[in-house]
Formats: sequence, C-alpha cells, structure tokens
Amino acid sequence: MTFIHSSAQISTKAQIGEASEIGPFSIIHGNVIIGKNVKIGAFCELGIANLQGPRSPLVIGDNSLIRSHSTFYESSSFESELITGHYVTVRENSHCGKGFQIGTQSEIQGDCKIGNYVKFQSNVFVGKKTIIGNFVRISPYVTLTNDPTPPSNTLLGCIIGDYAVISAASVILPGVKVGSHSLVAAKACVLKDVPKETVVGGVPAKVLGKTTDIKLRDGSNRPAYPWNKHFTRNYPKEILKEWSDTKSKEGL
Amino acid sequence: MTFIHSSAQISTKAQIGEASEIGPFSIIHGNVIIGKNVKIGAFCELGIANLQGPRSPLVIGDNSLIRSHSTFYESSSFESELITGHYVTVRENSHCGKGFQIGTQSEIQGDCKIGNYVKFQSNVFVGKKTIIGNFVRISPYVTLTNDPTPPSNTLLGCIIGDYAVISAASVILPGVKVGSHSLVAAKACVLKDVPKETVVGGVPAKVLGKTTDIKLRDGSNRPAYPWNKHFTRNYPKEILKEWSDTKSKEGL
Amino acid sequence: MTFIHSSAQISTKAQIGEASEIGPFSIIHGNVIIGKNVKIGAFCELGIANLQGPRSPLVIGDNSLIRSHSTFYESSSFESELITGHYVTVRENSHCGKGFQIGTQSEIQGDCKIGNYVKFQSNVFVGKKTIIGNFVRISPYVTLTNDPTPPSNTLLGCIIGDYAVISAASVILPGVKVGSHSLVAAKACVLKDVPKETVVGGVPAKVLGKTTDIKLRDGSNRPAYPWNKHFTRNYPKEILKEWSDTKSKEGL
Repeated sequence: MTFIHSSAQISTKAQIGEASEIGPFSIIHGNVIIGKNVKIGAFCELGIANLQGPRSPLVIGDNSLIRSHSTFYESSSFESELITGHYVTVRENSHCGKGFQIGTQSEIQGDCKIGNYVKFQSNVFVGKKTIIGNFVRISPYVTLTNDPTPPSNTLLGCIIGDYAVISAASVILPGVKVGSHSLVAAKACVLKDVPKETVVGGVPAKVLGKTTDIKLRDGSNRPAYPWNKHFTRNYPKEILKEWSDTKSKEGL
Repeated sequence: MTFIHSSAQISTKAQIGEASEIGPFSIIHGNVIIGKNVKIGAFCELGIANLQGPRSPLVIGDNSLIRSHSTFYESSSFESELITGHYVTVRENSHCGKGFQIGTQSEIQGDCKIGNYVKFQSNVFVGKKTIIGNFVRISPYVTLTNDPTPPSNTLLGCIIGDYAVISAASVILPGVKVGSHSLVAAKACVLKDVPKETVVGGVPAKVLGKTTDIKLRDGSNRPAYPWNKHFTRNYPKEILKEWSDTKSKEGL
Repeated sequence: MTFIHSSAQISTKAQIGEASEIGPFSIIHGNVIIGKNVKIGAFCELGIANLQGPRSPLVIGDNSLIRSHSTFYESSSFESELITGHYVTVRENSHCGKGFQIGTQSEIQGDCKIGNYVKFQSNVFVGKKTIIGNFVRISPYVTLTNDPTPPSNTLLGCIIGDYAVISAASVILPGVKVGSHSLVAAKACVLKDVPKETVVGGVPAKVLGKTTDIKLRDGSNRPAYPWNKHFTRNYPKEILKEWSDTKSKEGL
C-alpha cells in the first residue's frame, strides 16, 4: 500500500512501489519509476521533462528518502538507498549507484556517472560529465567544474577516485583526476591531477604530503586515513564486513 | 488563452499575457505584469511586496521561463526571454535586459542594472548596486560583493564589462571594475580593477596575461577568446548575424 | 486572532500565538510552538521530526518572520525577532538568541549555540557544534566547518566571538576561535585562532593588522571598526542606547 498525500499531484502513468509515501504538495510526472519503501517529502517535483535529448524514465531505487523541495528531471537513475537533503536538483542522464547521499542544496547538472556509497554534504555542485568512483566523500560548498575555457563546447568532467575526500569550499578544475584515497584540503583550487593517497591544498593546490601521515584529532594518535579503517557511520553491514575482512588480511 | 493550474493562487489584479502558463501551487501577487508566452513552474512566488521603498510592478517580458521554487519581489523588470533555473531569488529594483539567464539557486539582491544576454550559471550571488554589461557570463558559485568595510552604509557595487567571463567560485570585491572581454580565473579573489581583455587569477588576483593568448582545449589550436567568435549556443539569430558581420569586417 | 491560509496544513497539536500568520501551502507539524505576531511565508515546513535524538518542540519567539520555502526541524529554539530569508534550513538542537537574522539559502546543521543579534547574509553554512557570540555578522557564502579529518567522529565546532565580522566566501576551519571585534577578510581560509580586534586574510589566512586602523570608505576618514560606533541599521533602540552609553563613557 502506498501513502499519497491528498494534495500531491501524481500522474496516472507514474509507477510507485509498495509502502512508498508521497508528501504534501509534491508533483510526480508520468515518466517516473519509484521503487518500494521510498519516502518523498513535501514540495518536490520528480520527472521534469527534458525535451532536447533522448527520454527515459527517472528511476528511484528501493528504500530511498528524498527530502522536501527537491527537483529531479527524467532520464536519471539511482540504485537503492538514495538519501537526499532539501532543495536538491538533479538534471537528466546521470546514473548513480547504491547508497548515494546528496546534501541539502546540492546540484548534479547531468550526464554524470557516480559509483556506490558516495556521500555529498550540502551545496556540492557537480558539473556535467563528472565521473565519481565508489565511497567518495565531498564536503560542503565544493565545486566540480567542466569547462576549461568558459564558454566553450569542450566539457571535460572531473574524475574522482574511490575513497577520495574533498574538503569544504574546494574547486576542482575541468578534467582533473583526483586519485583514490586522496584528500583535497579545504578551500583548495586543484589544477593538476592528484596522485593516489596524496594530500593537496592551497590556491593553486600543491602536494602537502601523504594521507597516511595525518593523525586523528581525537587524542588516540591513530591514523586518520584510510578513513574507512575507523569511520563506519551509515555504511551498511555488508560493506563494514568487507572493510573488516580487508583489515584482517592486512594483519591490522 | 492562459493555462493556470487549478492549485495556483493568482491575484485578480495580476496581468498575465496570452499563451502563458502558471504551474501547480504557484502564487502570483497583484503587482505583477507577465508578458505573452511565459511559463512559470511549480512552487514559485512572484511579486512579493517590499513595503520599505517606492513600489512598482514586477514585469516579466514575453517568451520567458521561470523554473520551479523561484521567488521574485515586486519593482524589478526583465525584458523578453528571461530563463531561470530553480530556487532563484530576485529582490526589488533590479532592471535586466533581454535574454537574461539566471542559474539555479542564484540570487540578485536588488538595485542592480543588468544588460542584454547575460548568462549566470548556478549559485551566482549578486550584491545590491551591481552593474553588469551585455553578454557577460558568470560561472557557478561566484560572489559579487558590495560592502568594503562590513557592515557599513557605503555600498559599492561591482561593475562588470561587456563579454567578460567570471569563472567558478571567484569573488569580486566591492567597487571593482572588470574590463570588457576579460577573464577572471576560477577561485580568484579580485581586489583591483581588471583591464580589458586581461586574464587575472589567484588570491589576491594578479594579471596572468592576455585573454587572446589562451587556446581552446578541443585540439584545434584556435584562440578561446574573444569567445563569441566560436561559441554561439543559445544566442538568438540576430545576435549571431551581428557577431558574424563584425568578424567579416575584421577579415577573419 | 491568527490568519492561516486555507491551503496550509497545520497539525492540531501545533501552538500558534495571537496575530500570527501562516502562508499558502505551508506545513506546521505538531511539535511546534510559534509565538505572537509571527509571520510564516509560503511553502515552509516547520517541525520536521528527528527520530534519532531526544525530541523537544521547535520554538519560534514573538515578532518573527520566516520567509518562503524555509525548512525547520523540531528541537531547536529561537528567541524573539527571528528574521529569515528564503530557502533557509535549520536542523535540530540549535539554540539561538534574540534578533537573529538568517539570510537566504543559509543552513544551520544542528547542535549550535548562537547569541543575540547575530546577522547572517545569504548562503552561510554553519556546521554542527558551532558556537557564535553576540552581534556577530557573517557575509554571503561563508562556511563554518567542524571535521578536522573528514570523515571522522571528532567534530570541533568553530567559536566566533562577539561583534566579529566574517567577510564573503571565507572558510573557518574546525575548532578555530575568531576573537571578538575581529575581521576575517573576503575569501580567507582561517586555520589558526584569530586574536581579538585583528584583521586576517588570505589562503591560509595571515594577520594583516588591527581592525582599528581601517577607515570607512565614505570619504569621512572615520574608523570603520568597532563597527557598532557608526552602523546601527536594524538594531533595536535598547541596543543603540547601550552602545551610545558606552561611547559616552569612553569620551567619544
């Protein structure tokens, strides 16, 4: 059974899975497939048409939560366990893995490919053609750009490697590759590719060292990176088991 | 004939032109004049009163598109072909030319003057008293400030020249003039006036060279600036003809 | 008498004070106490449940104004005269003094403590556990961070002293203390504590001088700081009297 608020506007063509809820004043257009146990907050609009490209449905996987005032276009897809903040915008043709978390006021401009268990905090801006790996974490007010000589027709999306962390208010310039397990410091402007497990910072960003030299600030003197050796909040059990098995193998 | 969604709240004093549409749950106050063939998305509020100043109508020109969740105060005006993203805020007493494009989550704080065919991407913040010329392009997360000694009553708006390009996440300090056809690099903090056709970058921004020395990144080795010699997307035919005629005269 | 728009959705458990107004399409949940003479704009949602922590009501003090499209969770409180812009988000367990002004698109992430007569312009991001004193002023696009080694469980909120001013597009790093009456210049990245009455700027921020050496840009040659000796707009009479009495005592 689905719970649709009486004030919501739902197209008869929309597919809405079992045990899902649509909040007050939300609008679901026809070209939308919503999975099971999905909760959509108030004042959302899902499935806005993009008449300029090839059209496919907006697909929201099972067990997702889309918070209020969010806007999704058709032709993008999300595997299960999507969680968004408020006022999120997602344009067309972006394909995103499991457990994606999109912070309040973040925007994904379309034509992006995003892996599993990626987490954005608030106000993350993702330009067209960005490619993001698995387990990436992006802090507030980060901008991933794509046009090396604005305005032009040469869009070079950034490429962000697995487990990379991009700190608050940083900008990644068009086409830059951030290596896996790397850390971009706050307020950096990254012009060049970042090798894996490397810390960069500054405007323009320079290499500051190895991530593995950074200690936690909790008094424990333990290494802060790779972060998934100590930080597990909101990752599912099967992932924690995988991470734990890797640690065991490494004799940690 | 106009198409007003049954859930929209429209003042009987509002003027709405032929073939215009008002989306679900949108609110149009009385002091609003909407032209012909204008489309207003869902969850918008247009014509909010500003009781502190002299009051005139909000005017939206013909053939405009205002996307969902946007907020416009009274006493501002837009010539034809305005296009906005979502969650746009425009305060009072700003007067804007033809073909203005305002990206998602951008905000215009009021008392601004903006020329023709100006294009903002997402999250552009325009402080009070800013003056922007024609054909200016502003990338995401740019902030145009106005108070040299915050807080004070001396608001010095930025002045941005024709065809200037301001790249992502830059800040222009109060009263700074950016010359025509100039380029502000990403993440710059611009403290001093920028001469025309000049590239500046860094914190604080320094002159990096002439725009005419920058090449396109498409393998063609053609110059990237003046950008209007190669980039024409979404400009109207009469403008393209004007640009083309100028090129012919210059023997290009 | 209260004025509740017929399209608003109000829980019968919500408490709404005399002479208050709820705008079109707004939602007020049950765990909300709204004071007297409060005006809530359109498309707001107040009192969203946070099921993970201890729950208390959202309290909005008398004579407040919450502008359209704003989102407040339960368990936060605001003394009288709160004024917000549009699209504001406030999470749970933040406690804020009198006369708080929150600009458009600003976000307070929760577990914060904010003093009296604090004023944020647009797009101010306040991470969890931030502590802000009295009469603080924060310019657009400022980010107050909290995680020194993201991601971690060690959240170190920033601490901002009384009368401090943080200029546009600056970032304050986790746990940094900004002294009272200090000034952070535009686009700064503040890594270290800022002594009182000090100007800092740059990436990383360095000490640039004393605030008392900065002059107003209005031609008067008067000192710009302490700002409350010349700037009084929108502060209440009793505060202006207090400031004026201090000036008299100092023989100014």
